[in-house]
Amino acid sequence: MPIQGYAAYAARENLRPFSYEPGRLGPLEIAVRIRYCGICHSDIHLIDDDWGWSRYPFIPGHEIIGEVTEVGDLVDHLAVGDRVGVGWQAGSCMTCEWCTRGDTQLCARQTATCVARNGGFADAVHVDSRFAFRIPEELDSAHAAPLLCAGITVYSPLREFRVAPPSKVGVAGIGGLGHLAIQFTRAFGCEVTVISSNPDKEEESRRLGGHRFVHSGDRAGMARAAGSLDFLLVTAFGSVDWLQYLNLLRPRGTLCIVGASPSPLDIQPALLVIQEKRICGSVVGGPPAIREMLDFAARHRIEAAIELVPIAQVNAAVDKVRAGKARYRVVLEV
Amino acid sequence: MPIQGYAAYAARENLRPFSYEPGRLGPLEIAVRIRYCGICHSDIHLIDDDWGWSRYPFIPGHEIIGEVTEVGDLVDHLAVGDRVGVGWQAGSCMTCEWCTRGDTQLCARQTATCVARNGGFADAVHVDSRFAFRIPEELDSAHAAPLLCAGITVYSPLREFRVAPPSKVGVAGIGGLGHLAIQFTRAFGCEVTVISSNPDKEEESRRLGGHRFVHSGDRAGMARAAGSLDFLLVTAFGSVDWLQYLNLLRPRGTLCIVGASPSPLDIQPALLVIQEKRICGSVVGGPPAIREMLDFAARHRIEAAIELVPIAQVNAAVDKVRAGKARYRVVLEV
Repeated sequence: MPIQGYAAYAARENLRPFSYEPGRLGPLEIAVRIRYCGICHSDIHLIDDDWGWSRYPFIPGHEIIGEVTEVGDLVDHLAVGDRVGVGWQAGSCMTCEWCTRGDTQLCARQTATCVARNGGFADAVHVDSRFAFRIPEELDSAHAAPLLCAGITVYSPLREFRVAPPSKVGVAGIGGLGHLAIQFTRAFGCEVTVISSNPDKEEESRRLGGHRFVHSGDRAGMARAAGSLDFLLVTAFGSVDWLQYLNLLRPRGTLCIVGASPSPLDIQPALLVIQEKRICGSVVGGPPAIREMLDFAARHRIEAAIELVPIAQVNAAVDKVRAGKARYRVVLEV
Repeated sequence: MPIQGYAAYAARENLRPFSYEPGRLGPLEIAVRIRYCGICHSDIHLIDDDWGWSRYPFIPGHEIIGEVTEVGDLVDHLAVGDRVGVGWQAGSCMTCEWCTRGDTQLCARQTATCVARNGGFADAVHVDSRFAFRIPEELDSAHAAPLLCAGITVYSPLREFRVAPPSKVGVAGIGGLGHLAIQFTRAFGCEVTVISSNPDKEEESRRLGGHRFVHSGDRAGMARAAGSLDFLLVTAFGSVDWLQYLNLLRPRGTLCIVGASPSPLDIQPALLVIQEKRICGSVVGGPPAIREMLDFAARHRIEAAIELVPIAQVNAAVDKVRAGKARYRVVLEV
């Protein structure tokens, strides 16, 4: 039976109904009946061809929750009826150094769920079973969908860089990524400082778990916060003043980029040398990290704040995300 | 008795004889009769006021080896006659978080040996005894002098970032820092790749311990070396093509800046995100790291390749370093 969804046909145009034959299920694949799919900024970048490698038409969407409806001959860890999630990755070589270490996000031959492939703004999808993850019972499907990309994106660097008490952690930007990052870093036992260009988000930032709030447009407040952070997760996807953020770090502090800001770093190297500061990037995470993140989220009741939208209204939903007006994640209901 | 030395009186001018009264020895200070003093590029930057905070006249020099001639009342770990070395730092608050951890190089109130103070191009110096280090017997004085700044500058990040086998380490630039970095990384058991803009340095790089040599001007060679390094120590003090260096890193590789390059980083953040690369800086090291480095150098017979110059010829020596023609460190003999 063909899969029905909504595809981008050209950059910045409305999505339109689209159907495709998924083909025969491979031995390691599963078929998933999609219930919910979050809209991530990467979907917008792909729809708009911001990265120059979009191939039309394609169905966006990579924060998928649904049920397994069929399993390939070699699949033995998932069964029909299981509730699973699928994120950014759809596959990888599974034999290179990175894949064998579980860091499939660093595999040179990885495939993404909705890049040169059809993703989750649809009623079903076929994926490599090794990139589908059982969702812990404690988590609600719609609220868990954004964990599959936004959640792992902010969780993975906390683990990779061993962020732990009594670290003072900053989260710059309260959006799809940031509002989850605040919850995770709070649950990690850290002191959480939220930096936002919108002073109206202070109350919300505290409700999510932030201990301190700094409005990035408040020079005096930013000066008071200078040199106070061990780790700063920059989730912003727009233009960023890197120097302003670097100033917030203590000596040996780390600025970790997880958003897709187009602003070049443009930093004098001496600024990193004198106080031994670090700048790094992090991208989603591999299967072991995703499973760990889902368990951690279930234990700490971490979930996305979402706006549920019927998939028939996908274009209004995409526009809202494109405009940065989602509070904090739009999730399509299929 | 006044201390006799050579001072900078104005930016880019020749040094001229200078004498000063060191004053009464403080209770934690020692007096050192200087035998040798290396010339570091930072001395040139200070002489030339490249950083805008030089105060003239001052005696440069911060790679000092000499004998203790007097100790303050409270000094109990050094005695008259001890052979000691003094590096970039002359003092720090000793009570802040960083000082109490041994990372005095991150103290906000640190003082430098020849900044707003008179340094080592002289027959003697008074320093805080906690910043003078006994030199292991195995090390020759003149060849050990550069370890006090150049040596600790390249050794400290190897330890801080836990560089260890089987890491593939790159050293960019074979100068005062680089030629020591090659020896240290080789002794750490790593695979050492040397990157130099001068193809004539290949033989020398192998003699120092490098396993591989890449001429940075050789596009094909640089392309072959792409994605091969776990850790790249950039010792260059001139202009640097950061993107070219970043390309040499494997996923999760670290580019560590220890030189004083004026080239801004100018990197697209996505380049750090996609392969989870890191950029960091490192500056000298605190007393425990310096002692450890000296012991390690003694055990592995790591010493600087030097050109010994009588202190009376200090201006010719400074010009040679300024021109980047030292092979690899000019050391003044007092």
